[in-house]
Amino acid sequence: MYKIFYSPGACSLASHIALAETGAAYEAVRVNFAAGEQRSPQYLSVNPKGRVPALVTPKGILTETPAILVYLAQTFPAAKLANLDDRWAFAQAQSFNSYLCSTVHVHHAHRTRGTRWADDEASIEGMKKKVAQNMSDAFLLIEREMLKGPWVTGADYSMCDPYLFTLSSWLESDGVDIATFPKVSEHYKRMLQRPATQKAAKEQGLSL
Amino acid sequence: MYKIFYSPGACSLASHIALAETGAAYEAVRVNFAAGEQRSPQYLSVNPKGRVPALVTPKGILTETPAILVYLAQTFPAAKLANLDDRWAFAQAQSFNSYLCSTVHVHHAHRTRGTRWADDEASIEGMKKKVAQNMSDAFLLIEREMLKGPWVTGADYSMCDPYLFTLSSWLESDGVDIATFPKVSEHYKRMLQRPATQKAAKEQGLSL
Repeated sequence: MYKIFYSPGACSLASHIALAETGAAYEAVRVNFAAGEQRSPQYLSVNPKGRVPALVTPKGILTETPAILVYLAQTFPAAKLANLDDRWAFAQAQSFNSYLCSTVHVHHAHRTRGTRWADDEASIEGMKKKVAQNMSDAFLLIEREMLKGPWVTGADYSMCDPYLFTLSSWLESDGVDIATFPKVSEHYKRMLQRPATQKAAKEQGLSL
Repeated sequence: MYKIFYSPGACSLASHIALAETGAAYEAVRVNFAAGEQRSPQYLSVNPKGRVPALVTPKGILTETPAILVYLAQTFPAAKLANLDDRWAFAQAQSFNSYLCSTVHVHHAHRTRGTRWADDEASIEGMKKKVAQNMSDAFLLIEREMLKGPWVTGADYSMCDPYLFTLSSWLESDGVDIATFPKVSEHYKRMLQRPATQKAAKEQGLSL
């Protein structure tokens, strides 16, 4: 039995959807960020980083979205979440996920988690001002250079798709109109139609 | 023939060292950030993100450190840069690299690349103030929870080691004394003794 720790709508949604895609039995456990649960001794024993996602597996606990996505792809090959037989294709998918985690997610976090990088209110406000432009620039690059269509890596759905979908779902709150990016916008709608997306969203209480 | 695009001492050093470890023939090409070369049309045709590293391979160009490290590990299995036969061990290594790229590198970048996240000078200065604390907190977690010793994943050298080494090399300039973290400090010295580390450092003109 797998267990995915999540905060509603956070980046953990990507792993949650991928887990639902595998068809494995799992339990989704909410970490209440508003109540500071991510800093509780109980949760820090799950993930000492105090973040989501954390995936409890039969082998132990795994953290970090790109690592979880690949682990699910390798553990449930029938779900075809990655091209495991072609290391170049795999590398391109990994590169995409790495860009999302190290750059795009980080841009977004400057609106909601500015206290990670500065203590004074003026700096935290200063960071918020640049989020829309940064997210817009990043999604322009995704639209033009990365998203092959209909899915991220081309003809087949992969682990990159729930990750892009999750970050796309943040655009509106970041002040960016997803309609600016036609391919990303179509991708988002396509994702909404998948039963695994709907299942994870329902379990998180999200209306996407 | 491989080609690694780097800026001296930047995160591209991790991929550069790993490439040297494989024994493959390669050329190291400096991107002069001070001269703005990363934004030149010529370099943007290599990497539209305007960043290093970029690895030119017989298959095409690959970007993002965690993706490059895994690609080298899979392409040159004799170099034993990752445990490719054990998906749980592989997942743990991926998780470590993902933490470095999405959190630790990002903390450091707030000292040197604040203009990515704010436009006003006060906010950029505000971010710089928190870098030493953030790097210190991250390396405390690495010291206590992640670095198994003598190498990151335990008994064997892996792709995680040149990456940790690269970020460890930033600590002094970030205002953090590496000696605070005995295991990290020993790891850094152990890395310096490897011929591949020395080769890459020499090619980048670094005195580490």
